Amino acid sequence: MPAHSYTLQHIADFLSAEMQGDPHITVTHISPLQQAEEGSISFLDNPKYRKYLSVTQASAVILTADMAPKCPCAKIIVANPYVAYAKLATLFETKATYAPGIHPTAVIGEHAVIDLTAYIGPQAVIGRDARIAAHAQIHAGTVVGDHAHVGEHSVLWPRVVVYHGVTIGTRVIIHSGAVIGADGFGFAFHEGKWLKIPQIGSVVIGDDVEIGANTTIDRGALGNTMIEKGVKLDNQIQIGHNVHIGEYTIIAGCTAIAGSVNIGKYCRIGGSVAIAGHLTIADQVVLTGGSGVASSIPASGMYASGVPAVPYQQWRKNTARLQNLDKLARKVNNIAQQVGLSEQREDLTEHE
Amino acid sequence: MPAHSYTLQHIADFLSAEMQGDPHITVTHISPLQQAEEGSISFLDNPKYRKYLSVTQASAVILTADMAPKCPCAKIIVANPYVAYAKLATLFETKATYAPGIHPTAVIGEHAVIDLTAYIGPQAVIGRDARIAAHAQIHAGTVVGDHAHVGEHSVLWPRVVVYHGVTIGTRVIIHSGAVIGADGFGFAFHEGKWLKIPQIGSVVIGDDVEIGANTTIDRGALGNTMIEKGVKLDNQIQIGHNVHIGEYTIIAGCTAIAGSVNIGKYCRIGGSVAIAGHLTIADQVVLTGGSGVASSIPASGMYASGVPAVPYQQWRKNTARLQNLDKLARKVNNIAQQVGLSEQREDLTEHE
Amino acid sequence: MPAHSYTLQHIADFLSAEMQGDPHITVTHISPLQQAEEGSISFLDNPKYRKYLSVTQASAVILTADMAPKCPCAKIIVANPYVAYAKLATLFETKATYAPGIHPTAVIGEHAVIDLTAYIGPQAVIGRDARIAAHAQIHAGTVVGDHAHVGEHSVLWPRVVVYHGVTIGTRVIIHSGAVIGADGFGFAFHEGKWLKIPQIGSVVIGDDVEIGANTTIDRGALGNTMIEKGVKLDNQIQIGHNVHIGEYTIIAGCTAIAGSVNIGKYCRIGGSVAIAGHLTIADQVVLTGGSGVASSIPASGMYASGVPAVPYQQWRKNTARLQNLDKLARKVNNIAQQVGLSEQREDLTEHE
Repeated sequence: MPAHSYTLQHIADFLSAEMQGDPHITVTHISPLQQAEEGSISFLDNPKYRKYLSVTQASAVILTADMAPKCPCAKIIVANPYVAYAKLATLFETKATYAPGIHPTAVIGEHAVIDLTAYIGPQAVIGRDARIAAHAQIHAGTVVGDHAHVGEHSVLWPRVVVYHGVTIGTRVIIHSGAVIGADGFGFAFHEGKWLKIPQIGSVVIGDDVEIGANTTIDRGALGNTMIEKGVKLDNQIQIGHNVHIGEYTIIAGCTAIAGSVNIGKYCRIGGSVAIAGHLTIADQVVLTGGSGVASSIPASGMYASGVPAVPYQQWRKNTARLQNLDKLARKVNNIAQQVGLSEQREDLTEHE
Repeated sequence: MPAHSYTLQHIADFLSAEMQGDPHITVTHISPLQQAEEGSISFLDNPKYRKYLSVTQASAVILTADMAPKCPCAKIIVANPYVAYAKLATLFETKATYAPGIHPTAVIGEHAVIDLTAYIGPQAVIGRDARIAAHAQIHAGTVVGDHAHVGEHSVLWPRVVVYHGVTIGTRVIIHSGAVIGADGFGFAFHEGKWLKIPQIGSVVIGDDVEIGANTTIDRGALGNTMIEKGVKLDNQIQIGHNVHIGEYTIIAGCTAIAGSVNIGKYCRIGGSVAIAGHLTIADQVVLTGGSGVASSIPASGMYASGVPAVPYQQWRKNTARLQNLDKLARKVNNIAQQVGLSEQREDLTEHE
Repeated sequence: MPAHSYTLQHIADFLSAEMQGDPHITVTHISPLQQAEEGSISFLDNPKYRKYLSVTQASAVILTADMAPKCPCAKIIVANPYVAYAKLATLFETKATYAPGIHPTAVIGEHAVIDLTAYIGPQAVIGRDARIAAHAQIHAGTVVGDHAHVGEHSVLWPRVVVYHGVTIGTRVIIHSGAVIGADGFGFAFHEGKWLKIPQIGSVVIGDDVEIGANTTIDRGALGNTMIEKGVKLDNQIQIGHNVHIGEYTIIAGCTAIAGSVNIGKYCRIGGSVAIAGHLTIADQVVLTGGSGVASSIPASGMYASGVPAVPYQQWRKNTARLQNLDKLARKVNNIAQQVGLSEQREDLTEHE
């Protein structure tokens, strides 16, 4: 017997959605349209996948009303299929439960305060004067530094490191290998050597933040690095000291944010983006994957600079030209002058 | 006495190769041509290093027949010197052995099945119902989640994390800090917040895969993230949820692969590459380092988009032009029209 | 009462600097000019922040003599305010002390030699024949491999991994999640598979090096990967096998350096840079953030190749043109020929 099994009626009720088809149909798992088989429920959100709708083998599909006529099976009709899928998936998730208590191999520092409902896993280390709030989970091998706080219902997966003095809000999820509060990268050049600048600030993580595996967030040089509530960070992101990230901004993997950058609310930042230090990014800025940001972005909108790959020979020729682009532009200007290109004519092309 | 010492005869026999020179010559270590001294054996594979052959101080060199006349010392002649070197290096490797058994500080979950020939190091944590097969090595501080499987002869170096339910094949090597099976990055925007999409798939790692230090491979949203047999992944690679990587593909460090990407077999992907989500890359595609991939690549071949560094002033001028490249191209088109550039003439240049 | 409190006189004496204002003024923390309030001391170094000087609420400011007239409060006059700030910050740092000794949960291998003044934290694992020198700190969950050495006064924060045989100098700081000495990425293609090349070298880290969180430094294939004294590495940097980094070079976060690269002394390498394998970079080279390096750089100076983001529509048009840049350049050459652009004229533009 599958781990999960629901009737369409149950699902429609759960989603408060309209259903078309046999309410007694039973589904046991969720699948993408093109991989679905009898007994699975699917959803159609991304237009890229529309082509699979008419041929899907799913027993039921979650979709918008306008797509319903093309659906060959039972359907659940919603305004936002992706949100409905997010909710539905919670029904098919097998969440392990962790009994409250401190594993005997965990090491708890002096004066640490650990709520009785918290779970402290094997080999975890909790520092002096640290506080672990109600229902928090500190998994195997995770280290919470001295004077650090972890809020209620927050989950630190195995082998997270939270340095001393860092504050983690409530319902925060931090994945394995993430390091919160290591020293920011600050050195002054002095007599032929690099003099370390003590990093005397800390990190504050707001409520409902999620932090991906092996992501690093440095402590402030002065004052704190701040990640506001609802921010979602993917894996292997680097966040320098004194960065401030506004509420509900979402950042994809491998993006690097240098020190003292101020990012607004509700931004969507792609993967492999690099943002130089001391810049300000407005609210609701979208940066596509691979972009480099070298100056502040004062207005919301979409920005890009990634260079897409082309066949190698084409790239080789284009790159040789790119290295001499300024010369090419000057040549064009000379020609334009020589042939007497009318400025008016040039301007007109702006409206092509 | 050096740790390793072999006669040329022994090495020639080991490599099933032809030898030219005194079979009794003894070598104690392998060195690059330009750093070799008496008592070392070297090899010539990369043409860049040919210049060092005639002046090498090595006692013997592994090379192809056509290079042999230029070699000033004893030689071992093979078809592929790099492969011969790979084999030879196993003779000079000092591999630590790890006695089977479970270190007393390791923590083993209920119903976990650990083969008697497996090694479980200090502070390792093995979850409930996990299985560790024969001759596997789980090193210090590594965490294997509930219901996860580790295949025969696989080696997990210190501080790896394998999340719940992940399957690792046989003879897999995973380096320190790698995280396999953290949640994929999936959120639906709903009422001004990001709603987490439960990641209910898992990760399956095929046989003979190697995974570098601090590389992250996310679990599937639905279904599994799949790394097929023989794939080699360098350090700090990020692999999103539901990615599929075909057999024997090799990927260099710091490359980021977004969710639901499908990569073929025998691809060679350079370092610091970024591949956007939901794309398909054909078999035997070569991507040079630093490339960005924004659309699917349907045919094998070499592709590129990296931008090579130039002196700063040159870069500054070229970049200013690049930001206005579309305007420049329009200007050229206007001029071409004004001077009546013959289309035929332009076409001819394609065959230059 | 604040944790730290100093009179201006004390600070001026500590910095051997001239003071202007009431020597009895007391400051309790350091703040940036624009966030300073009564009781805080600030500094002015970056010209970007000059605009905040006249309106600062700080009780005192560290600055150069030429800036002093514009300072509305007490001042401490120095030649290099950033260096003075670096020194001053040590007065405001609360450093935890770690009593010498080995935590009872740490695991110490056979024949390991641990100085009596060293600190070995909870759950740390020290390998066979490893050596931990005087006053070193090995924090919670860190793993030091067999035969590895850690020098005097070096600090390995929680969950660092040092593989077997690696040598760490004195006063080295390594942040959490860093992995030193994992196998380099070396495979020979042989009969349709990738044959692993044993990585029989090691890693040597010089004195006074700092290594950021989740940075990875691979062991040499033959010989050692070398990080010379005084090098500073930020977070999430990847350093391939057999790389050599010269003294006092500094590298920002997320930079990737492929195998066998030789980098000179006193280089300054930005974040998210990628350097291809087997290249040589001269001393005192500056690489701006986001640069790609595809060939050796034989002379000191500043180099760049990052592409800055622009509004999306502009990017889309420019990128389409960039993909056909070679064609555009040929067209320009054809036009130049057709209109008889004088070469002399073109040359003149070089001196504009």
